Amino acid sequence: MTANLNVTTVVGNPKRLSRTLTTAEALAAAIAAGLGTEPRAESVDLAELYLTGLEPPHGGFERLLGQIRSGDVLIVATPVYKGSYTGLLKLFLDQLPPKALEGTVTVPVTVAASREHRLLADLHLRPVLAELGAKTPVPSLTLVEGELPELDARLGAWTEAHLADLADALAFGRRPIGASA
Amino acid sequence: MTANLNVTTVVGNPKRLSRTLTTAEALAAAIAAGLGTEPRAESVDLAELYLTGLEPPHGGFERLLGQIRSGDVLIVATPVYKGSYTGLLKLFLDQLPPKALEGTVTVPVTVAASREHRLLADLHLRPVLAELGAKTPVPSLTLVEGELPELDARLGAWTEAHLADLADALAFGRRPIGASA
Amino acid sequence: MTANLNVTTVVGNPKRLSRTLTTAEALAAAIAAGLGTEPRAESVDLAELYLTGLEPPHGGFERLLGQIRSGDVLIVATPVYKGSYTGLLKLFLDQLPPKALEGTVTVPVTVAASREHRLLADLHLRPVLAELGAKTPVPSLTLVEGELPELDARLGAWTEAHLADLADALAFGRRPIGASA
Amino acid sequence: MTANLNVTTVVGNPKRLSRTLTTAEALAAAIAAGLGTEPRAESVDLAELYLTGLEPPHGGFERLLGQIRSGDVLIVATPVYKGSYTGLLKLFLDQLPPKALEGTVTVPVTVAASREHRLLADLHLRPVLAELGAKTPVPSLTLVEGELPELDARLGAWTEAHLADLADALAFGRRPIGASA
Repeated sequence: MTANLNVTTVVGNPKRLSRTLTTAEALAAAIAAGLGTEPRAESVDLAELYLTGLEPPHGGFERLLGQIRSGDVLIVATPVYKGSYTGLLKLFLDQLPPKALEGTVTVPVTVAASREHRLLADLHLRPVLAELGAKTPVPSLTLVEGELPELDARLGAWTEAHLADLADALAFGRRPIGASA
Repeated sequence: MTANLNVTTVVGNPKRLSRTLTTAEALAAAIAAGLGTEPRAESVDLAELYLTGLEPPHGGFERLLGQIRSGDVLIVATPVYKGSYTGLLKLFLDQLPPKALEGTVTVPVTVAASREHRLLADLHLRPVLAELGAKTPVPSLTLVEGELPELDARLGAWTEAHLADLADALAFGRRPIGASA
Repeated sequence: MTANLNVTTVVGNPKRLSRTLTTAEALAAAIAAGLGTEPRAESVDLAELYLTGLEPPHGGFERLLGQIRSGDVLIVATPVYKGSYTGLLKLFLDQLPPKALEGTVTVPVTVAASREHRLLADLHLRPVLAELGAKTPVPSLTLVEGELPELDARLGAWTEAHLADLADALAFGRRPIGASA
Repeated sequence: MTANLNVTTVVGNPKRLSRTLTTAEALAAAIAAGLGTEPRAESVDLAELYLTGLEPPHGGFERLLGQIRSGDVLIVATPVYKGSYTGLLKLFLDQLPPKALEGTVTVPVTVAASREHRLLADLHLRPVLAELGAKTPVPSLTLVEGELPELDARLGAWTEAHLADLADALAFGRRPIGASA
């Protein structure tokens, strides 16, 4: 447990205030509550960030990048569009500097309209996160829209299965390698 | 051969007037010259199309969609960013109606900075094009930046290998299935 | 139409006489009936081919390779195992010489236990076929086990949608590029 | 540090005693030496395991499965064949029970002949490992054959970058979630 766990959520749904956003924020809250005593969770709707154009680095972009770098956990959320993550999300990731997520513990969240598409955005997103240097130590939360009414149960199952591993990856109180146990 | 072969090129490089654009236009010209007697090739720089914002369907978007639908060949070009196609390209593809490319003969063009990334954008792009219903009957033109000085030779090798198959897929003068040969 | 259309089917299900085999053979028959007047379809169960060991090139392997090369259409069929095509199928593909399928018109068939896995084997298989030089001009037939009772309807829909494109790719009676139409 | 760190290496190169094997064993030794005081590393050449046939579960298979389950780290090594992991490796993974690698900390090693293929086996392998429930908390070791003469330097860079994260994932001495730090 740590007092100042910071969870940043980035949402790549072109529609503002989407169910992708509420789903990702619910996961952020569950992680923050599970691992931090005074959790702080902030979320950025990329549909807001790029509202006036797609030109690279501007104020909002730089603030978000700083927030990700100083935070503990990054949640990257996307609906499944055309069988993959959204272009809006990738537009943001494209504008990040090389290896911008080096060492950042990252958890993808994907929401698909159909079961056939459930795994697809995750399949394509993880290599992009790897290219950026992100750590993705636990499985993504991959949901189908029909499961959203039972979101609490899904979140419970996910945290039950993966919160301990996430805590390990965050390495709070990590002992130096080579130190005696 | 057909008199009115139309080739539309869509370029997903966030930088306007990129080498991705000139490469894709060179392929468009080679295809048009090889298969049509009065070739018409038009290209759209998505960096232009989304210059003032990324909001879905507007005039330029609708014109481009109409052009693609009435054309014969679509070239979809992207640099390799973060190990995949660009977010800008996917932003455009995301805004297309379901199955918008049904029956459209499509050829991807990718330009990578390193050999390690040469095949990656194509690997991730083709399933998205398939989801949109596009026909992709021939291999993509996948280039590394270091090869751009020898673009003519690369284009020559590609057309030599694939132009006949592309012509077959265009099915100019297709005989009905079941008709005697 | 052509009198001597040859369809070869290769089945990568480790269980002999599988539903993958019967599904693939049904597609082979539908293609042969749709495009050839005296169709010949042969199928090879890789579970038979590798029954006594997995050592590379032996008699059965060489016969199958010859059959593929002299044939018109290759059907490559696999169940979805662990989210991808089977190792048995890839074992066979690995043993093929480089570019062994150059110019071979190939149609993948995949059968998944769940809808989540429907698209996965195809997603991973097509790049391998591309590496081998295969032409894959039409979408794969991707089925879920629960759809097998309605196989005839699925085959009908597939042939209705894609047989003409397959015929174009086979280019029976192809006119030379540049000849007047 | 732990006294009894067990590293199991599974090698999917159809050629016995391959450079893939020696590379994977070198990584196993580096991990064992870095994290355990009395390291034990064992490796299984799948080309040996399947020497007399590919029929599922037999003595060697069961022993290997037991070894993986009782071990701490699993290294899964493959050359890049036809743009992906080998069929031999997948044949073994296909025969594992569902979720057989649940909780197993796994590190992929891939060796490619060309730079174009460097990332491909890893890209396709990680989703299969995820389907089996494996934990893959650190990046794979992806090598090109031309780098093998400088293997020590590559191993040094990999362990420098990732050994601490691997130790975290192994969670030696993990504190219960919710316990005070």
